[in-house]
Amino acid sequence: MSVLVFGHKNPDTDSICAAIAVADLKSKLGLDCKPVTQGELTPESKFVLDKFGLSAPETVTSVAGQKVILVDHSDLAQSPDDLKEAEILGIIDHHKLGDVTTPNPLECWIWPVGCTCTVIKAMYDFYGVELPKNIAGAMLCAILSDTVIFKSATCTEDDKKACEALAGIAGVSDITSLGMEMFKVKSAVDKDTPRDLIFRDYKDFSMGGSKVGIGQLEVVDLSIVEPVKDALYEEMKKVKEEGGRNAVYLMLTDIMKEGTELLVLADDPEPVKKAFGKPVEGTSVWLDGVMSRKKQVVPNFEKAYG
Amino acid sequence: MSVLVFGHKNPDTDSICAAIAVADLKSKLGLDCKPVTQGELTPESKFVLDKFGLSAPETVTSVAGQKVILVDHSDLAQSPDDLKEAEILGIIDHHKLGDVTTPNPLECWIWPVGCTCTVIKAMYDFYGVELPKNIAGAMLCAILSDTVIFKSATCTEDDKKACEALAGIAGVSDITSLGMEMFKVKSAVDKDTPRDLIFRDYKDFSMGGSKVGIGQLEVVDLSIVEPVKDALYEEMKKVKEEGGRNAVYLMLTDIMKEGTELLVLADDPEPVKKAFGKPVEGTSVWLDGVMSRKKQVVPNFEKAYG
Ligand SMILES: [Mn+2]
Ligand SMILES: [Mn+2]
Repeated sequence: MSVLVFGHKNPDTDSICAAIAVADLKSKLGLDCKPVTQGELTPESKFVLDKFGLSAPETVTSVAGQKVILVDHSDLAQSPDDLKEAEILGIIDHHKLGDVTTPNPLECWIWPVGCTCTVIKAMYDFYGVELPKNIAGAMLCAILSDTVIFKSATCTEDDKKACEALAGIAGVSDITSLGMEMFKVKSAVDKDTPRDLIFRDYKDFSMGGSKVGIGQLEVVDLSIVEPVKDALYEEMKKVKEEGGRNAVYLMLTDIMKEGTELLVLADDPEPVKKAFGKPVEGTSVWLDGVMSRKKQVVPNFEKAYG
Repeated sequence: MSVLVFGHKNPDTDSICAAIAVADLKSKLGLDCKPVTQGELTPESKFVLDKFGLSAPETVTSVAGQKVILVDHSDLAQSPDDLKEAEILGIIDHHKLGDVTTPNPLECWIWPVGCTCTVIKAMYDFYGVELPKNIAGAMLCAILSDTVIFKSATCTEDDKKACEALAGIAGVSDITSLGMEMFKVKSAVDKDTPRDLIFRDYKDFSMGGSKVGIGQLEVVDLSIVEPVKDALYEEMKKVKEEGGRNAVYLMLTDIMKEGTELLVLADDPEPVKKAFGKPVEGTSVWLDGVMSRKKQVVPNFEKAYG
């Protein structure tokens, strides 16, 4: 039985590509591994796999009795619900350390960089395993996605260096135009329902006793979302009520203007002011320079709610 | 202010040497670090530092407001009580993943090998930093200590390879006789009180609601502890009562015979039989082939108490 390698719920391109890459690397090192996904692929991820001729991982939502490797997360809430009944062999990630614990020693590569695939590139180098051209291309896209083409506050020199090396292997001559091509796919909002858009990149957090949901929608220009903004807000109301959430936030991030319009639906809007020093106007607030949920929004909210 | 690097409470030789090595490596990589210890050094650790001309780390038990790197543990109970008020920059370890979590991304190198110093040797190689001769010697001793001169069930090929490389750097020609010399120091029981002997390498666990303490005393021959066994048992009674513990176990491990006499002081001796398939006779039970608390005793007890 293959070891299952998977990223977080509502998988983004990093979760998909990291699972594929780690399964490839570990299999070549002698541990039979299979990449899987916890949920449907985003249009961006589909574009990336298509572009580099990779097939989509199978969907797996239950892992009881299996051996597993987690990528791109270390939180129980982001893993399958029956993770406790699986044997965790390793974690490769770039986030804060979550609440996953294990009864046995395991292998963790967790670095404070912009993308899991940056860590995985180092692992290939460390083990002296050759990176296949198509997987290198997918990993390159994952880093461009997670770092918003190097503009995110989470982006490090390691990420940039990894991209250069990966582009060389994949035969990509213009990294930025590959990134723009990918973000145009990601930006498209006309083919999705408001619900799909909210959950495109969505996470629930527990902050000082409050259940807080934060989604993020990255677009190359905010005008793209203008026609659907009211519909998004109406859908956020349903999401808030259904999950018994205290607040639902949706980050509309303009990757060219380098800022975020935060749509706010909260029992108490005070934490927004506390977190960012600006009051909500109408249903939203413009946060100049805010690009990263992980590095800029979550830590500020955690203090404000704490 | 230097980043503090420290191992677990009741530090063993790995915790001390790993802290020294990581502080050296990270400082050379541009992050000013200082090795510290949470408690007094064992005779074994003193012997190792003395042998390779290294000074003992300063003792630090409070880390509020500091930046820290943990080595050889990832459990809150094994860290300073105010760890929550420190900023954790990294964890280098070889145990099961504990309950430490962080609000920010961090650097983790955690491998399923016999000793933290085996991971650190790989880190020096990865970063291309030259290992000082004396630190290589101390790391070699840490691996020999944690793997009981390669006899422990936790020992891997990686540990053996690291030792060979470290011996080359440190100029140690006979690894086994260095290990034996060190274990003779560790085995000595005549200079310590029974309490010191119990706490020489001691950990508390929470198992299925029970508070269980497990100490380990490794000797080159069980005859060494025979004269102090009754005194140890009397002291275990005090330890059990003071801490409101449900059981206190003391592993008397004979590293040459490759087995453990387990001294048992428990409200309910049933878990011992469940865990090892043998009843307690008098105050102890002989466990043939059992050398490792982490890999052989704790997992079995966790199932038995679970
Ligand atoms: Mn990621
Ligand atoms: Mn250790």
